[in-house]
Amino acid sequence: MKYSHSISPDTQFHQLTEPFALESGKLLLGVKVAYRTWGKLNARGDNAIHICHALTGSADADEWWGPLFGLGKAFDPERDFIVCSNVLGSCYGTTGPISTNPETGKPYGPEFPAITVRDMVRLQARLMKELGVQKLRMAVGGSLGGMQVLEWGKLYPDFVESIVSVAASGRHSAWCIGISEAQRQAIQSDPNWCGGWYAEDAPPRQGLAAARMMAMISYRAYGSFEKRFGRQVQDNGDYAVCSYLKYQGKKLVDRFDANTYLTLIDAMDRHDVSEGRWDYYEVLGSIAQPTLVVTIDSDLLYPPVEQQELAQFMPNAKLEWLYSPHGHDAFLIDMEALNGLIVKFVTTAFG
Amino acid sequence: MKYSHSISPDTQFHQLTEPFALESGKLLLGVKVAYRTWGKLNARGDNAIHICHALTGSADADEWWGPLFGLGKAFDPERDFIVCSNVLGSCYGTTGPISTNPETGKPYGPEFPAITVRDMVRLQARLMKELGVQKLRMAVGGSLGGMQVLEWGKLYPDFVESIVSVAASGRHSAWCIGISEAQRQAIQSDPNWCGGWYAEDAPPRQGLAAARMMAMISYRAYGSFEKRFGRQVQDNGDYAVCSYLKYQGKKLVDRFDANTYLTLIDAMDRHDVSEGRWDYYEVLGSIAQPTLVVTIDSDLLYPPVEQQELAQFMPNAKLEWLYSPHGHDAFLIDMEALNGLIVKFVTTAFG
Repeated sequence: MKYSHSISPDTQFHQLTEPFALESGKLLLGVKVAYRTWGKLNARGDNAIHICHALTGSADADEWWGPLFGLGKAFDPERDFIVCSNVLGSCYGTTGPISTNPETGKPYGPEFPAITVRDMVRLQARLMKELGVQKLRMAVGGSLGGMQVLEWGKLYPDFVESIVSVAASGRHSAWCIGISEAQRQAIQSDPNWCGGWYAEDAPPRQGLAAARMMAMISYRAYGSFEKRFGRQVQDNGDYAVCSYLKYQGKKLVDRFDANTYLTLIDAMDRHDVSEGRWDYYEVLGSIAQPTLVVTIDSDLLYPPVEQQELAQFMPNAKLEWLYSPHGHDAFLIDMEALNGLIVKFVTTAFG
Repeated sequence: MKYSHSISPDTQFHQLTEPFALESGKLLLGVKVAYRTWGKLNARGDNAIHICHALTGSADADEWWGPLFGLGKAFDPERDFIVCSNVLGSCYGTTGPISTNPETGKPYGPEFPAITVRDMVRLQARLMKELGVQKLRMAVGGSLGGMQVLEWGKLYPDFVESIVSVAASGRHSAWCIGISEAQRQAIQSDPNWCGGWYAEDAPPRQGLAAARMMAMISYRAYGSFEKRFGRQVQDNGDYAVCSYLKYQGKKLVDRFDANTYLTLIDAMDRHDVSEGRWDYYEVLGSIAQPTLVVTIDSDLLYPPVEQQELAQFMPNAKLEWLYSPHGHDAFLIDMEALNGLIVKFVTTAFG
């Protein structure tokens, strides 16, 4: 596994002994889940939190959500047993397109089956059981993580005690699906793409970088770009904003796999909490745990109207605003403010 | 010229006999301007309007701005002498990357020199002179066209009597430059790109299509996509929004050239009405013609804050709002409303 160097040495692995049945009906063999834990599970097994990561995230939640960890914070290892597992289909240790297909002895590559957000959560639930968790005190995440959180609430009403969904929607919008599609086209335009059968040492770097640049723009906002970059030009003649975006593209390409990226954006596009259930609003109405829905005022990708809808139709949901100039990515930038919102929610919900 | 099939048979051409000096100092030889006219120039030569087109537009303004043409409308051929010329660097008849470089006998391709919005307008002014225009009653355009309009006002204060700038900015923002860069990367990722020396029958179709898809998203808005497409799936299993974007990508690739696209987005990124002049706000303050600035409330690409700034600093500017769910493209969609705003302005400015 080529990208495993980016996984923390504290990562643990759970190997499933039985096949894992996907929502599509397909079976995945030899599934492995990479995860990290912080704190200890108590005797009753009811102090666990599952952190759900976003598109290109990993189980290393203390790296990307560091300011939410600590004494008296949202995730307090003295009080909580905190688990973050790498999602199914990702390239940070859990089974995904870069894993070996036991049926062929080669990496799955583009043949990795289509998965859903629900599949990700069902695999996380297996891990929780394996770890002896009796009650999940909280499922929490932003963006793709916030979508997983809604599925956690719906799939396991008796197991999950509360949910915190940040900057996410109950179903992927046409807007988000369109942005995914443009990225897909960019990746598949790369000369190295080869229908997904690219060589390990010659991935579709430029296409994936272009996709990441598009994504980065959708994660940010007009005002924050203007303030940070304006029309500033670098010594090499590039606009500062172009250098920044190229750097972001390169950084992703160095740490992430293209088939994995496509597998995960595909799962996001499929995301609809009512899929195969019943009416969307009735499904939202049936997710009854104490819920915190966080919306970011400048989010262009999952705009406030989506979280307002969630909070309106989920019977025990509270809507909180994270005011930020940074757009969607504010959940990874304005972390002190987000921590404050979660701490307040935890205090209210669990005293 | 491979794309000339899309040019109206009514197109006329003006061939410059002398070299055309670009702002960069480079000389372009044998420059030709493709243009259309409607109505007649009056004896005093003072009833002319120049329509400035957007990124992938052409001189055929009656095709893309049809509802603005007619008796009592913004462009009234009974009253006005209406000219629309294809911009320098485009592929609809005016000299650009697909034109033959007289120095090599081959198309310029990626060696076409960098141009500016100011260059475009200076060439348009030559044409006006050639046509015998003594006063330009109005320069009008949206998006890239709206940027040209500001240069018209600044370059020719005594010649231009009024300007109408729709959904544009006085200088390209970091946000817009970033969106251009992601598109540039997508085009240059295409296996057919060949550093811009692609074969005429094998252009970088997929990369240009991906770029167009990104652009189309930036031209529209969350709400209009949601209303039109939602999560609707086509018979072929594609989301409707993906089919739509792919269709838009294909449509552009069939009618537009990749080097041309890059030349024009580069010119847009360079757009800054204060470039080589003086303080930005002072430059805006020196554009003193009666001015109509139109802003679109849902425009994500050139958000209202930009037009509010123009109207605030241009001494004789009036700001009007075009309310639309469609985003930036509203200036090509909500044309009746736009016509109304221009008619009102014309009536006020010229009685």
